[in-house]
Amino acid sequence: MKIFRVTFLPFERSVEIDEGATLAEAARKAEVYINNLCGGEGVCGECRVRIIQGTAKQDESASAFFSPEELEQGYVLACQTEVHDELTVEVPAESMLEDEQIMTGERRDEVVEGEDVVVREERGLAVYPLKPLARKVYLELPPPTLEDNITDIERVSRELRRRIGWHSYEISLQCLRNLSDLLRENGWKTTVTVVQDNRGYKLQKVEPGDTTGSHYGLAVDVGTTTVVAQLVDLRTGRVLAVEGTHNMQAQYGEDVISRMIYACRKDGSGLIPLQEAVVRNINDLIDALVRREGIRREEIFAMTAAGNTTMSHLLLGLTPCSIRMEPYVPTADAYPQILASEIGIRIHPQGILETLPSVASYVGGDIVAGVISSGIAEQEAIQGLIDIGTNGEIVIGNSDWLVCCSASAGPSFEGGGTTCGMRATRGAIEKVKIEDGQLSYQTIGNAAPRGICGSGLIDCIYELVKNGIIGYEGKFDRNRDDPRLSLAEDIPRYIIAAAEETDSGEAVAITESDIDNLMKSKGSVFAAIKSLVDYIGLTFDMLDTFYVAGGFGSYLNIHKAVAIGLLPDIPEERIQFIGNSSLTGARMALIYEEAFEKGRNVSKSMTNIELSNYQPYMDEYVASLFLPHTERKLFPSVDY
Amino acid sequence: MKIFRVTFLPFERSVEIDEGATLAEAARKAEVYINNLCGGEGVCGECRVRIIQGTAKQDESASAFFSPEELEQGYVLACQTEVHDELTVEVPAESMLEDEQIMTGERRDEVVEGEDVVVREERGLAVYPLKPLARKVYLELPPPTLEDNITDIERVSRELRRRIGWHSYEISLQCLRNLSDLLRENGWKTTVTVVQDNRGYKLQKVEPGDTTGSHYGLAVDVGTTTVVAQLVDLRTGRVLAVEGTHNMQAQYGEDVISRMIYACRKDGSGLIPLQEAVVRNINDLIDALVRREGIRREEIFAMTAAGNTTMSHLLLGLTPCSIRMEPYVPTADAYPQILASEIGIRIHPQGILETLPSVASYVGGDIVAGVISSGIAEQEAIQGLIDIGTNGEIVIGNSDWLVCCSASAGPSFEGGGTTCGMRATRGAIEKVKIEDGQLSYQTIGNAAPRGICGSGLIDCIYELVKNGIIGYEGKFDRNRDDPRLSLAEDIPRYIIAAAEETDSGEAVAITESDIDNLMKSKGSVFAAIKSLVDYIGLTFDMLDTFYVAGGFGSYLNIHKAVAIGLLPDIPEERIQFIGNSSLTGARMALIYEEAFEKGRNVSKSMTNIELSNYQPYMDEYVASLFLPHTERKLFPSVDY
Repeated sequence: MKIFRVTFLPFERSVEIDEGATLAEAARKAEVYINNLCGGEGVCGECRVRIIQGTAKQDESASAFFSPEELEQGYVLACQTEVHDELTVEVPAESMLEDEQIMTGERRDEVVEGEDVVVREERGLAVYPLKPLARKVYLELPPPTLEDNITDIERVSRELRRRIGWHSYEISLQCLRNLSDLLRENGWKTTVTVVQDNRGYKLQKVEPGDTTGSHYGLAVDVGTTTVVAQLVDLRTGRVLAVEGTHNMQAQYGEDVISRMIYACRKDGSGLIPLQEAVVRNINDLIDALVRREGIRREEIFAMTAAGNTTMSHLLLGLTPCSIRMEPYVPTADAYPQILASEIGIRIHPQGILETLPSVASYVGGDIVAGVISSGIAEQEAIQGLIDIGTNGEIVIGNSDWLVCCSASAGPSFEGGGTTCGMRATRGAIEKVKIEDGQLSYQTIGNAAPRGICGSGLIDCIYELVKNGIIGYEGKFDRNRDDPRLSLAEDIPRYIIAAAEETDSGEAVAITESDIDNLMKSKGSVFAAIKSLVDYIGLTFDMLDTFYVAGGFGSYLNIHKAVAIGLLPDIPEERIQFIGNSSLTGARMALIYEEAFEKGRNVSKSMTNIELSNYQPYMDEYVASLFLPHTERKLFPSVDY
Repeated sequence: MKIFRVTFLPFERSVEIDEGATLAEAARKAEVYINNLCGGEGVCGECRVRIIQGTAKQDESASAFFSPEELEQGYVLACQTEVHDELTVEVPAESMLEDEQIMTGERRDEVVEGEDVVVREERGLAVYPLKPLARKVYLELPPPTLEDNITDIERVSRELRRRIGWHSYEISLQCLRNLSDLLRENGWKTTVTVVQDNRGYKLQKVEPGDTTGSHYGLAVDVGTTTVVAQLVDLRTGRVLAVEGTHNMQAQYGEDVISRMIYACRKDGSGLIPLQEAVVRNINDLIDALVRREGIRREEIFAMTAAGNTTMSHLLLGLTPCSIRMEPYVPTADAYPQILASEIGIRIHPQGILETLPSVASYVGGDIVAGVISSGIAEQEAIQGLIDIGTNGEIVIGNSDWLVCCSASAGPSFEGGGTTCGMRATRGAIEKVKIEDGQLSYQTIGNAAPRGICGSGLIDCIYELVKNGIIGYEGKFDRNRDDPRLSLAEDIPRYIIAAAEETDSGEAVAITESDIDNLMKSKGSVFAAIKSLVDYIGLTFDMLDTFYVAGGFGSYLNIHKAVAIGLLPDIPEERIQFIGNSSLTGARMALIYEEAFEKGRNVSKSMTNIELSNYQPYMDEYVASLFLPHTERKLFPSVDY
């Protein structure tokens, strides 16, 4: 078999690859991360690259994605083009998955000291005592005598029991090896690290001398789109630093479903790359965090990870194949505590990883973390929690009961499935306002507009209805005379940023079909909330608080989100953003034993309503495909 | 550095080794196992080899071990001779550690079906229900439906709970990997293997289909001298086969103390070879057992190992260095359950190893196994147990209390420290009788006599006293005219087998100093028994039964052992041999959950009396250096 060299610009990264491999595979091998929304099926057209040198011919069908000029210039889809020559390939900015501008500070979660304590006090919740998953204890042992000649390990355990209470400690062989010399060579002074799992306490590490001065943990939110990690000082519970990055699994498929398809390829070759991708993400974040704080990776001894059920399966290398098919059964919803090193995560070799438990195939550890973070399972008042991404997961309940469900929202809220949609990164239009016929917008980072993100889209739809540009059914007013509105073309569209305002020279616009997609997304989410509330036999006004978590963060305009019929019409002050509650919950599980215990109980006791075959949900969904809703009286406060 | 080739005859095994290495090291590298009683210190003279070709010069001091003729012939001590030339070396039979004739059947423990049950019934003990350490259960699971869509692992656990009772199962990541496909591809039929540790139950293996037809375990007695393993059918508890071999650690030192010294060499290089040696032993036994029974190694899923505290430490790779120094503290006396594969034992990769817990530095898991096997901790009557080897360990007690101690017996009972001593292998004189002035003897395997083993020595001493050849103080009657007695030489000795009766052409004889050594050994053991009985405030006649375990097996003559003052003078029927109780106890721990639990409790509750600084023991010891004893009234039945 012939081997060819492929060079990717502007990175100047070269790789040798077997003849017949696709350009997408070559890019992956070269660690050049190219968009791959559809998982290499050739249907999304997001992996556009340009052949600069050499000859390559893409699959016939892919030509449809390009204009004759583009084809002339050498544009091809990376996933549909085989390598049969030495090639130089240019990757345009829009095809790059790894956007260097992402996560550079302005959107990073704020690091607030003692935040948990303050927030919980504000919500009237008991403050958890600091009891991290891994605890370090410094011991000065009395040397053995003939009268007191218990074994070395029993001497350690006895002192430990005196210090942190009566426990039977599980001892690993690792800790026993060399224990004898370690104690004698260091004057019987030692620091032990104790970890807890669901069966009890384990002595996980024994070190010479006093090392309690350094003890770190890591909380990770393994999102489908982004992976975010917090470095935590386990001595104080304080967050030291946060780093985030795109989930590199995106190279194998943008959303959860396409990644499951990739993971479950018949030849069995799909699972490992997906696991390796997210492990690499986490290792990169660890590297960045420890560099920033000037510590060593080995000083991190415990980590928690929260993700949806599929992300948790992929992280641990479990096949997620039955999750997406009826009757939607995951391999597990409680995951064993493992050594992080077992799956290649580079913290202390004996350091542990706890993956937060899931509830069902589409209600994962991220939602359990959200329940921990919001405290809804700890109060008498009935509260709700919604996490909006490509799925909308909803929990309603109180300290006695919890019910949840999940609905597919589609990619609209995350910038997908929309002509000019993009993720909430630099250059994304995040706010839109039309006043006195004048449209104004605001972009992330105040950069030249590149597209429109989820919150911008909601803003936009609201303004369009409010100003009569579209009707309640989401169609443009065809009688309207508006220079931004072009009805003449094949696809009716409304221009938000004109071509001359953008760097690419192409206008940022919203089409009728974009609006239609968003209505389906918001309809799906609202129908899920409504179905769940009905199922329990409640009405919206009985919800004391409704927490909104997820990618929107604090950038969503509540009033507008209610007005388009995404969120229930309850008094605005009862709707609260809680940011990345998956990350917050993961951190709480890391540092508060009671919080983790709460999470375990929640995952076991929460009732999941499977909506996919639930007729009332179907009916609600159809009724929700209107702005704000077919049943107008559900939205009394809406101002149009 | 130069490299030389050394060839060992008669094996014709060659090895290349750095200049300056010793012949002993070269032999080890060539896997030629040479005696090494003193651990390479050049003081035992047991590693005699002969240089056939090439030039080698041994350390000056070693010459003392050879006659001028032998030196002329090229005899050297392997441990005291460096390699500075290409060499051919002959290893004489007496210097070989690995005796091919050992364990070839006649001395192998009998394989008795249902033996445990019969023995326990005979002793009036409750029969344990068969509950092996690892249990296999075949499950036919109902496929998931929308109404019953619990996770795959919960489906397995639920069915398991229905079948073997309510337990919370710990699940390893290993079991979850691929579980989803495994269940679906095999029609929801699976066999799970559940193991138990001191924290609860663990799901250790999940396999497709019904594999309950094959389920094996291994019980190993890790003795200082020999390693013996039983292959057990875990479905029935039946012993299928037994194999034994010399402990290869002997190449690094014959007894426990010299191995500890080797393991604790300053450069840290000693521990691993000792661990590897015994692991190799066990793997060899496994190979032999599975070959014999026609099964695969991977069908063995659980094993138990019983050994003295040092053997257990070495097996697990724990430094035994503080065991031999006051205040005699081991690293641990309870050992974690591990994967056998963690230390290189080749059974199923997920198969587990439980090492039986110890009591103290010199009362190990072999004694705990002995207590399990004898059942002394389960009866109201006060019973005793003694295991005689180079150490004598004694336990006395009943179902309410247990007290134990250990005394160094020296190597006499195992054939060491005696001019013509040898282990109980082919050619060893095991019985001696003098009747009407005529001496007769019996050898193991009825072979030509090569030496005398422990039981032969006891027989011999008894006969010598009884016939007035030696007096009560162990000295030859110098007035006696006996052709076998040669008093004229430097060392007075008594010939048992004349030179013409042996293959080597050298007589097998016993010297006054041999007799002295044996008196010290038996004195040490008896003093320990007496001290322990006194400590508790008992008298010998209060001992309901006194079990004798260990290498002697059924070859020791009780009457004679009592008469020389080794065992207490209680009615003969109260003294019972129980053979290798370490192996039997290990097997019981393997197949009876309750027996293992009993062992754990025994190891925690048994009181150990440290004799090394116990004055009454010293006094008893001095009084015991007589045949049978200074205090004659302690041995009323003795017939001389």
